[in-house]
Amino acid sequence: MKKGAYAVIFSNRLRDPAPGYDDTKDRILALAEIQPGYLGHMAVRDADRMGVTVSYWESEDAIKAWKAQAEHATARRMGREKFYEWFRLEVCRIERFYDFEAGR
Amino acid sequence: MKKGAYAVIFSNRLRDPAPGYDDTKDRILALAEIQPGYLGHMAVRDADRMGVTVSYWESEDAIKAWKAQAEHATARRMGREKFYEWFRLEVCRIERFYDFEAGR
Repeated sequence: MKKGAYAVIFSNRLRDPAPGYDDTKDRILALAEIQPGYLGHMAVRDADRMGVTVSYWESEDAIKAWKAQAEHATARRMGREKFYEWFRLEVCRIERFYDFEAGR
Repeated sequence: MKKGAYAVIFSNRLRDPAPGYDDTKDRILALAEIQPGYLGHMAVRDADRMGVTVSYWESEDAIKAWKAQAEHATARRMGREKFYEWFRLEVCRIERFYDFEAGR
C-alpha cells in the first residue's frame, strides 16, 4: 500500500452461530470494491472465529463516504445486532510500508 | 487503542512447512511484551496459512527501537529466509477508533 493512504483495521470475533454473516460479508465486500477510493483489502479469520480485516482507502473522505453508504450502514447495524461478539475498528494513516516476496 | 498511537500491520503467508516458526513467534511476542512502548497486539491466522498481526506502539521511536532489538532482528531474517512466502508491513498512525461489545 502507499504512504498517505488510509488503513481501516477491523478486528472482531463472530458469534456462534452468526446466521446470514457469510452472505452479508460477500455482498459488502463486492460493494466496497466499487466504492470510490477503495484500494484493496486483506481478511483473515481463524478457527476460533477471530477475524481481522484491513481495508485500504485513498483518503479519510473515501472512508466517510463508505461508512455512509446505505447498504453498508444496514450491514453494520446487523453486525452489532447479530454477527459480532465484539469488534474494534481503527482508522489509520499509513506512514511507511515494506513488503517481501520469497525468491523475488 | 488510542488516537496518536501507532499500529504495525503485518500481513503474511507462511510457507508449508515452516519449521521453527511457532517457537520463534512465541519468543518474539514474549519479547515484544516487555519492550518499551508496546501497547498490545492482535494476531489471527487461517487454515490457508494467511495471517495478520497488528501490534500497537506508543510512538514511531518505540517501533524503531523494537526493529533494532537484536533477537527480533535475527527473527526477522529467519522470517525472510525460512518462514514466509510473502509479507507486507505497514506502519500507521491511529487517527480514530471505535469499539463494540455485544450486550455491554
